[in-house]
Amino acid sequence: MEKLTVIKIGGNIINDEVALNQFLIDFSKVEGKKILVHGGGKIATEVSKKLGVKTEMHEGRRITSKANLDVVVQIYAGLINKNVVAKLQQEGCNAIGLTGADGNSILATKRPVKEVDFGFVGDVTAINTKSIHTLLSGEMTPVFCAITHNKEGQLLNTNADTIASTIAAGMSDLYETELVYCFEKNGVLTDVNDDNSVIPIIDSAKYEELKKEQIIHEGMLPKMENCFDALQKNVSKVIIGNANMFQNNSNVYTTLTL
Amino acid sequence: MEKLTVIKIGGNIINDEVALNQFLIDFSKVEGKKILVHGGGKIATEVSKKLGVKTEMHEGRRITSKANLDVVVQIYAGLINKNVVAKLQQEGCNAIGLTGADGNSILATKRPVKEVDFGFVGDVTAINTKSIHTLLSGEMTPVFCAITHNKEGQLLNTNADTIASTIAAGMSDLYETELVYCFEKNGVLTDVNDDNSVIPIIDSAKYEELKKEQIIHEGMLPKMENCFDALQKNVSKVIIGNANMFQNNSNVYTTLTL
Repeated sequence: MEKLTVIKIGGNIINDEVALNQFLIDFSKVEGKKILVHGGGKIATEVSKKLGVKTEMHEGRRITSKANLDVVVQIYAGLINKNVVAKLQQEGCNAIGLTGADGNSILATKRPVKEVDFGFVGDVTAINTKSIHTLLSGEMTPVFCAITHNKEGQLLNTNADTIASTIAAGMSDLYETELVYCFEKNGVLTDVNDDNSVIPIIDSAKYEELKKEQIIHEGMLPKMENCFDALQKNVSKVIIGNANMFQNNSNVYTTLTL
Repeated sequence: MEKLTVIKIGGNIINDEVALNQFLIDFSKVEGKKILVHGGGKIATEVSKKLGVKTEMHEGRRITSKANLDVVVQIYAGLINKNVVAKLQQEGCNAIGLTGADGNSILATKRPVKEVDFGFVGDVTAINTKSIHTLLSGEMTPVFCAITHNKEGQLLNTNADTIASTIAAGMSDLYETELVYCFEKNGVLTDVNDDNSVIPIIDSAKYEELKKEQIIHEGMLPKMENCFDALQKNVSKVIIGNANMFQNNSNVYTTLTL
């Protein structure tokens, strides 16, 4: 099978213009077929403030009102996604920027209301591998932002980590797929304040151990769940590391295995 | 050659939610391969005001500052384009929303500074027929907003009428291409206030005559130039008419011929 690399960059890289530009130069040089998934960053919050749109939270999680959704669609699918695409085109990478609605590539369902109504938040239900394969075959590099749709006309705000792992899992039917989570740290750390404390390999047993010992930082848990989920769905390799790893050809990062 | 229909809808349809929804239902039913190009509408101006971004004009034409560009990218490529795509997907049309940067599909050059610096405004220089053909062959319907790029990392605000005619002209190498301009009037009118005064056919001679008699409304002139330009570049048919023409299967519109 042909190789495919799915790379996700976090919001903190999006927020840092210098780091983002360098990453995009590096990404454009990654060989073979590839897909980029990007997070949102703080611009949406800043624009919301200026527009007088309130950001409501519940236990640290954002509630997406209609007004919030409009802002994140503008910023994620508009401002960020299109500037990323333009920059990649400059670097000779034939990028095409997408939400899950485009080519019906990522279907989601509005999160059911239980104790809390999270509003226009989507949980991914299916990846349209045919659409994505058409673009890859046409020598294009899909660049996904974290917006999906429900095929009933509704756009939905969706977790970018989950989008990346679900795309990687779906595409592994057609490609030997590798999933790379890039952020501002060097990998999964035993000490969150020490960037030299990277754990090189984490398998399922080690993961259980790290959870029991509460070594893994709380925010890292959902990301790790996404990683193991992808591995279970035949993604061949999952890596967590620094966005500059491609530049340095670094081997300092965390590899996850089953 | 296979048929292709390029349809452009104007900003006044974008501004009218009911008319837009009905148009998108009708568009989704148009048979054969098709491309939608949409204008901007007034939302960008409204959001600019809220964000405190000034809109500068020169002789009725907008000057696009960096702050203006950010807003139009957000609104045209983000809010409007993605909601149009989601709605078309609901109607069973496999839409994919694009700027000219996506798939490097529309190249433009920043308008040269003469007496006036129009800022980040692009003049179209080339259409990437290969990219657009890849999408059409993959059973997708491209939906373009009026943003292009210069392949040097810069997004550019571009006239939607020109985008539509340039796409139609470019694609007529590969398809028997028809170009339809849809707006809120029934066609080219002899009396701008009388929607029953549609001129059914305008050829080059008639156009010269109408210009001489100053019957054609000033705002219509650049649109007409785009139409004749497309016809000269082998577009098989150009129509100007009401956005509801598909719904009514109407034959009240203006057909342009050389």
